[in-house]
This record gives sequence, structure tokens and C-alpha cells, in this order.
Amino acid sequence: MRIGIIGGGQLARMMLPASINIGLDVRVFSEARECSAQLGVSAVGDYRDFTQLSRFASEVDVITFDHEHVPLEHLSKIQKDGTKVFPSPDSLLCAQDKIAMRRKMSELGLPQPRWAIARDVDDVDSVSEVGGFPCIAKQPVGGYDGRGVRVINALEECKDWLAEGVVLLEELVEFVRELSQLSARRPSGDWKAWPVVETRQESGVCAEVIAGSLDLSDEVHNTAQELAERIARGLGVVGVLAVELFETDNSELLVNELAMRPHNSGHVFTELSKTSQFEQHLRAVADLPLGSTELLASVGVMVNVFGEVSLEGQSSAWESYPETKIHSYRKAPRAGRKAGHVVSVGSNLELVLAQTRGARDKVLSSS
Amino acid sequence: MRIGIIGGGQLARMMLPASINIGLDVRVFSEARECSAQLGVSAVGDYRDFTQLSRFASEVDVITFDHEHVPLEHLSKIQKDGTKVFPSPDSLLCAQDKIAMRRKMSELGLPQPRWAIARDVDDVDSVSEVGGFPCIAKQPVGGYDGRGVRVINALEECKDWLAEGVVLLEELVEFVRELSQLSARRPSGDWKAWPVVETRQESGVCAEVIAGSLDLSDEVHNTAQELAERIARGLGVVGVLAVELFETDNSELLVNELAMRPHNSGHVFTELSKTSQFEQHLRAVADLPLGSTELLASVGVMVNVFGEVSLEGQSSAWESYPETKIHSYRKAPRAGRKAGHVVSVGSNLELVLAQTRGARDKVLSSS
Repeated sequence: MRIGIIGGGQLARMMLPASINIGLDVRVFSEARECSAQLGVSAVGDYRDFTQLSRFASEVDVITFDHEHVPLEHLSKIQKDGTKVFPSPDSLLCAQDKIAMRRKMSELGLPQPRWAIARDVDDVDSVSEVGGFPCIAKQPVGGYDGRGVRVINALEECKDWLAEGVVLLEELVEFVRELSQLSARRPSGDWKAWPVVETRQESGVCAEVIAGSLDLSDEVHNTAQELAERIARGLGVVGVLAVELFETDNSELLVNELAMRPHNSGHVFTELSKTSQFEQHLRAVADLPLGSTELLASVGVMVNVFGEVSLEGQSSAWESYPETKIHSYRKAPRAGRKAGHVVSVGSNLELVLAQTRGARDKVLSSS
Repeated sequence: MRIGIIGGGQLARMMLPASINIGLDVRVFSEARECSAQLGVSAVGDYRDFTQLSRFASEVDVITFDHEHVPLEHLSKIQKDGTKVFPSPDSLLCAQDKIAMRRKMSELGLPQPRWAIARDVDDVDSVSEVGGFPCIAKQPVGGYDGRGVRVINALEECKDWLAEGVVLLEELVEFVRELSQLSARRPSGDWKAWPVVETRQESGVCAEVIAGSLDLSDEVHNTAQELAERIARGLGVVGVLAVELFETDNSELLVNELAMRPHNSGHVFTELSKTSQFEQHLRAVADLPLGSTELLASVGVMVNVFGEVSLEGQSSAWESYPETKIHSYRKAPRAGRKAGHVVSVGSNLELVLAQTRGARDKVLSSS
């Protein structure tokens, strides 16, 4: 079976080891030959160009994704032409379009922040609907890693976005913690989850993920999984689904964002779980039985590295922290660019956190 | 740093995931474009041809190996021309030539079966030196997976080999168990071992490996590691070293065979240990700090699959045994050919063994 991945970023890169282990034939359609997933690249071109996309699709059995930016109308045509597309264009709509997602969550009766659509800078009703200022403004499509999201105190502050179209407003939730629930679903319906993890953001970007031994009640754990399963089934997601959640001070969970591919918050499972999210995603889209999500240690921590990961940096970090796994995405170094991540697993959260951060600091200071 | 691997078999294949995770640039020199390590192939040719080998070597910083069949005189030239070769030709001699290995073990004062060199079918003295018949006869070079090894009751039985040159005779050791001690060494001397494992052979070929929770005394564990360290240092091995050992009924350990590359007996560590032998080998030859060899579970079992590993077979096995990891080498199916392996880890040896074998049987019956 041949699986085609659209996009040559780090998520495609990290699907390659899983594909090699299992023995799946994976091909990557990238915008540039030189990319994170270079070893898997079989076609270079523009995923927004239907002809190029279609040519790539004709060479594989299943299309899946490194990112969610492929035009849905192209994917629908490809699907009609006989190549499977997982997640399907119907599901993907809710990963591409934040308003469609909010509508769907409402339809499914799932807990989420109050939301409204602002149509112009005078749309005060929409602001009232989300509880007034400050509130969150989001561009409905295209944002990621904090881009396309603003905390606003006046609609004027997203005037530029409103000039282009409607803006999604969301209640500014006072959360005690952000969580992420990773799971995966096969076309046949089989669904499996990992334990919910805590994500810690800096400037709207995921900086750290804590897994296992969270100070969470069984109820919260179960609710997170239940929400994820309802979303996976409700949207017919095939592949990995990441549900980002707000935990409020009364232990309520609200759906924040969705991703339908391996997600930064799930990198920790490569070392912590019997099945990585990359392997699980490939199994799901290939309609193979899902792997065990059992954990191999009680605690795992993932810390992103922004800037550069050089061999010198890795070497220096490993001298001090031999327990840590340091992943490099082989990206050209640029300030603030996510260039890799560090994971450690163990039984003592403080120790594991300290060594993971310590390794990250060493990587950065020596790269 | 660019690492060149000579040979495109499953060992090269399994180095690729490790190289992707760490971010090392790995290139494979294979005899055929279609091979297990296909994704990493950058040159196709004959490793016995110095010109081709040298061209490949000039494009990388370090040369290492999927197999030990490269002519040593070529490797020495390549080393002189400025490309590092790990393990070095001097070390490799003892992996290529079983007589040189026996001599070196004697020099280092290491425990091993009695051995002698038979020069012709009338060389009765050599037979006496190893304790008479039955004894083991080995072709000094070229054998693997049981080939080039015979139990003989008369020198006539290896007349064909004697016509080509000398034959190594070894005492037929009455062992209670075969063990394998995996470790790795950096050029700077840093050395790290995994716990010793038990190997179970069928028709002279490794069929199963049991790791962790072995019924072995601490003394045997320590002796195995001590022997491995003395060999690694004595031979100046860089990279992974596998020392195959006989355990006698009085708990003595005798050196059976050596391999200076990732070895079938170490596959279990991909799932069982914080650092796989493939990652450790790459780290060692790249002169990066070695990773932690800590185990993530108390028991691990690896079972080889001979014949075919198809997606249908994997699917069927995973339906029944979701805990198992099934590796496919993507080799054209052939009766008796090592086509993949299954690993499970856990805490109960009987259970882990049963599920690993169960999965293997399902793979075979459905492939």
C-alpha cells in the first residue's frame, strides 16, 4: 500500500521512521526538494495546483497530510477519482475553518467557549454574545502556532481581518490549564486514545507538554476521552485527531481547537507509548489495526526547541543529559523557528522536567 | 555529518529511523536500488570494486556497515584517503576472519572454546587439540546465519572447504544457553552495554531473543559485560559490538562469535531500551555521546519471521496481538528468508513470549 503525504514538514518527516518500521510505502509531495521530510520526497510542487496534486494522488492509494492547507475542492475531486483521502474533505473542513468547527461542535452539543461571528467593526452584538471585551478574535482559516489569533479590546483591533471577511470571536476563557487529547480512528470506526496531556504555551505557541501523572481526576481524564471520541465519530475523522481543551477552575473541559493529523502535543508518545502518533496515524489511514497506546513510563515531558538544533548542540546536551531524546527536524536555523524537540520519560515529574529543559537549554546554548 | 552505510539490507534499513530522529544525514551504498534500505540509497554498485567504493566514500564523512564483507585492503585505502571507517579495518579483521578472531581472543586471555587450524583431511593433531569428534568446523571467512559452520565426525566431512584452504576447528561446547552481549563504543573510548540477552537458535539461525528477567546470576551478567568491554577495547571497536557467548553448566561464559554492527540479537532494544542499537551505532560512529541503555520494561522478546511479512499478515497479527510491534524488511518473500521480526515488551515473560510467538504465527499464516 502506498501512502502519499501532502507537505514535507516535520510531521511528514516523523512519519517516515514509523513507515520504515511497519514496512509501509510512504511518498511525500513537498513544496521543495530540500525539506524536513526530504528522504521521503517523491514529488515537488504546489499542493494548491490541482494538476500537480492529482498527478501525485494517482501514484498512491491513500492521501494524508502534514498540514491542513490543501483546498478541499481539490481533495473532493481526488476522492471521486478513486484515491482515498484521510481525513476526508468533509472532516477536514472543521480543521481548516474555525467557524465550521464551532458550528459543528454546537450541533454535536459539545462544551466550548461562547462564540460569534463578527462581520464588521460595528458588530457590537457579536461582542456581547461572547461576553464582551477582552475577547479572542480569530481568522477563520489559515492561522497556526498563534498566528491568526488575537486578544482584542475593540473590534478595531482586527480591522485588517474584517476587511478580508468575517472574524470568529470567542469568549476569553479563564482556564487553569490547557490540555490536549490525542486519539486515532480507522475508517472502519475503531478508535483508540492516549491519556490526555497538559500543554504549556508561550506567546500562543506550544512550548512544553507534560504527559502521565497529571494532577487530574479520573473524571476529567474520562471526559477528555469521551469528548475526543464524540468528535472523531461525529466528524468521521480518519487518522490522528488532536483535541485541544481548556480546563476551567470547576474542572469543566471546553473544546478549543482541533487538528486532524499528528500534533505537537503528541510528540511525547514516540518515547512514552507503545505506539507513536505517527505510527498510529499511518496505521489508521492504511486501515490497519490500531496499536496499543499503553505508556512505558509514568511520566513524559516534551519541550520544543526554537531556533537551531545542531549536532554540537545535541552532543553537548547528551553529555549532560544522556536520558533525553533530542529530535532534529533539519530545518535551516531561524530565530523562533521550531527546529526540533526534546523528550524524556521516567517516574519523577520534577526530575524529568528538569532534564528535558536542561537538555533544551544545552542544545540552544551550543547550537 | 554524513554517514555512509555499505550494504542495503535490513540493518541499514533500521538505521534510517534512528538517523531521521537524531537528524543525521545517512547515505546507503547498495548492490541494488530495490533493497531493504531503499529510502536511504544514494549509490548503487559493487562494494568489492575499489573505484565505486572510493567514490561513495568521498561523499561522506564516516563509513560504516550493514555487513562485514567489504575487502579490508579497500577500507584501509579509504581510511588513508581521509574518510573515517568505523569499525576500523583492524577491528573488522576479527569480524571477517574467524581464525584471526580466535587468535586475538587467546592473546587477550579471554575464555573461549578450544580451537585449532586443520590444514588437510589427515590433520588429526588439530582434531585432538579440540577434544576429538564430534567437533565444529568453520570456514574462516564468509559464513553467516549458520552457513559455513558444520558439526563433523570426520575431517572428510569438510573436505570441500579444505580444498579451498584451512578450516577452523572448535571444541563442541556443551552449553546450557546461548547469550549475546550487546554494547557500543565511541572513538574516544566511551563504552556502554545493554543487559545480556538469551538467544535461541533453530538450525544454526537465531530464532528468538529473550531480554530482561533472565534466570542469570549478577555474576554472569557482570562477566558478560566485562568480556564485551575487554573485547571492545582490546580490538578498538567503534560502533555496536555483539559478543555471542556460550553459557556452560558451571556458569562459565565462552566467546562464540563477534559482530561489529547492529545484530539480530539486539533488535529487541528498539522497543525495550531508551536507546536502540541502531541509534547507538550511529551515535558511536558519529562520535556523539552514547544514549541511555536503560530498559523501559522488565521483559522483552524478539521473534524472527522467516518467509514473508505482508500487510495482511501484519493486520491479522495486530487484530489478535495489538501490543506487538511487527517490523517488515520489505524483502521479496522466499521460504526461509528472514523477512521481519516481532517484538513485545511487558512484565510477564510467559505472556510476552506467547503474544510475540502468536503474532509471528498469525503473520505467517496470513501472509
